[in-house]
Amino acid sequence: MIKTKAYAAQSSTSELAPFELDRRSPGAEDVQIEILYCGVCHSDLHTARGEWHNTLYPSVPGHEIVGRVVAVGDKVRNFKAGDLAGVGCMVDSCGRCYSCHAGEEQYCETGFTGTYNGPVFGGENTYGGYSQNIVVKESFALHIKHTEKDLASVAPLLCAGITTYSPLRHWGAGPGQTVGIVGLGGLGHMGVKIAHAMGAQVVLFTTSSSKVEDGKRLGADEVCISTNPEQMAAYANQLDFILNTVAASHNLDAYLQLLKRDGTMTLVGAPAEPHPSPNVFNLIFKRRQIAGSLIGGIRETQDMLDFCAKHDIVSDIEMIPMDYINIAYERMLKSDVKYRFVIDMASLK
Amino acid sequence: MIKTKAYAAQSSTSELAPFELDRRSPGAEDVQIEILYCGVCHSDLHTARGEWHNTLYPSVPGHEIVGRVVAVGDKVRNFKAGDLAGVGCMVDSCGRCYSCHAGEEQYCETGFTGTYNGPVFGGENTYGGYSQNIVVKESFALHIKHTEKDLASVAPLLCAGITTYSPLRHWGAGPGQTVGIVGLGGLGHMGVKIAHAMGAQVVLFTTSSSKVEDGKRLGADEVCISTNPEQMAAYANQLDFILNTVAASHNLDAYLQLLKRDGTMTLVGAPAEPHPSPNVFNLIFKRRQIAGSLIGGIRETQDMLDFCAKHDIVSDIEMIPMDYINIAYERMLKSDVKYRFVIDMASLK
Repeated sequence: MIKTKAYAAQSSTSELAPFELDRRSPGAEDVQIEILYCGVCHSDLHTARGEWHNTLYPSVPGHEIVGRVVAVGDKVRNFKAGDLAGVGCMVDSCGRCYSCHAGEEQYCETGFTGTYNGPVFGGENTYGGYSQNIVVKESFALHIKHTEKDLASVAPLLCAGITTYSPLRHWGAGPGQTVGIVGLGGLGHMGVKIAHAMGAQVVLFTTSSSKVEDGKRLGADEVCISTNPEQMAAYANQLDFILNTVAASHNLDAYLQLLKRDGTMTLVGAPAEPHPSPNVFNLIFKRRQIAGSLIGGIRETQDMLDFCAKHDIVSDIEMIPMDYINIAYERMLKSDVKYRFVIDMASLK
Repeated sequence: MIKTKAYAAQSSTSELAPFELDRRSPGAEDVQIEILYCGVCHSDLHTARGEWHNTLYPSVPGHEIVGRVVAVGDKVRNFKAGDLAGVGCMVDSCGRCYSCHAGEEQYCETGFTGTYNGPVFGGENTYGGYSQNIVVKESFALHIKHTEKDLASVAPLLCAGITTYSPLRHWGAGPGQTVGIVGLGGLGHMGVKIAHAMGAQVVLFTTSSSKVEDGKRLGADEVCISTNPEQMAAYANQLDFILNTVAASHNLDAYLQLLKRDGTMTLVGAPAEPHPSPNVFNLIFKRRQIAGSLIGGIRETQDMLDFCAKHDIVSDIEMIPMDYINIAYERMLKSDVKYRFVIDMASLK
């Protein structure tokens, strides 16, 4: 056992506070990672506060983890002490179902094991990245090829990066395609950067005229203020694909109408209140589709990290110490972050 | 001009009654078809009664037309007098947009011209198949290879057949695929027959236990009573594709949960009242999709007719005389038809 300092919520109503947990000693196939930085995802807040009604306490959130390998098991072949490594949203899956065989562990038929609050389908609780170290199976650890100075800004790629990269790849974003990104938050700002690097014409949709300049700096070719009917009308039937990152309930029809024939809008946020029911005519008359997408598989997460390293893509971040986390959550609720908080884990010592 | 007997609604509140219209004399690229049979589609009723608030009166419905060519223009190459021919939902489209170039005239960027109530985007009204004859561009006429004795039962293929064939083809129904068909009405019964002929494992979903036997006779390998939670649960994550033919508002989540990862449910009916808003988690957690589909292109309609002739597929019909149409509409509203009314146009003379 490895005594590990962490931050945990003890109940749905208690703030996060110092906590000590035991990590398993690395087994033959495990790598032990000293956590250097951990991104702060909205799911962390939902889980810490029990908003999905499935939280096991104490809850140690954090699934945008980067750090340095400090020990490896006997059978580990692809990592050695001193390597940079990352861990995302998953630390295990059944490994036997057709989705696991396809490298789509996020869709594991029996449910993957989350990096935190993992054993929804049985087993011991898992503790995430708001901690000094983590021990994971080699097959769920990722290599990081970015330069070390960028390491903090790489952390959010492990969730926000793959959540946007995977659908953009799956639905073929690339040269000759016009791709809409709805929302410029943690996910949206990664979507803009990645879609741009894939070679697509990128149109950012935002309610906020204050984000036009930032959207263009991040890689949007065009920015449409979604509350302006004239600007929206100009994009009718123009988009090949829309990545909708907005988790708040909103009118999907306004975006469906912007898709070309056979276009897809993929939702990566789930609203607490349902969206207004989309108009079926908007689907029928252009054979359009509404889809959902969940993070990405391990192989694809590695592809994403390599792609981002090659294209010099990282997240825009605000670095915080561990004891700032409760304030960070409040600011996140007000969208007061550009565009991701990352915890400097040195602050936990 | 060709004086033509027909049946028309003169207003949204008047019953259909005898009417005389003028067809254009066939131009160089036109074929003139003596109509022998015309299927009765629910859209006929919606249009005659102005339920879509876009009806031009007098309204002559009917877009499941089969008959015999009686005259052709000088430039017509593929039809000659005496040929059997069909006309479906469209009689023209722009011919220049990317959808028309792709043979997907039903998604024409400026809107196709409907066989009846056509010029939604300008031009003269068009009159459909509740009439003695029709004159159409050769490029919108279809060849019929079924034997002549089946001709009445072929008529519904022109709308109900292509509306189900097109999405089944587009989403790859075939051997090794498990396909759900939701609803056993005019569309659903064609969907069952066609999906079966394509080689898919076909599961019919119906609320009505009285339809189990009929479903199997029509080609369903399995029938699930959709109001039975245990029967539904047995299909969780089992289906590759669902063709949902139900136009009434209903719970889409119950069906989305039956799709495998990456499965699609395609809606071909549009409800008057919106469906309850589908749960986004059901999309996200298996990368599932909801789509819509509208009839099919002319080339694909010909493919469908040839496929059905080869596989000996026709519609199950109840033949009626023209003056029965108002009663037929009332029965259709009660789903009291197995599975399509077809008007014997000889009754109009």
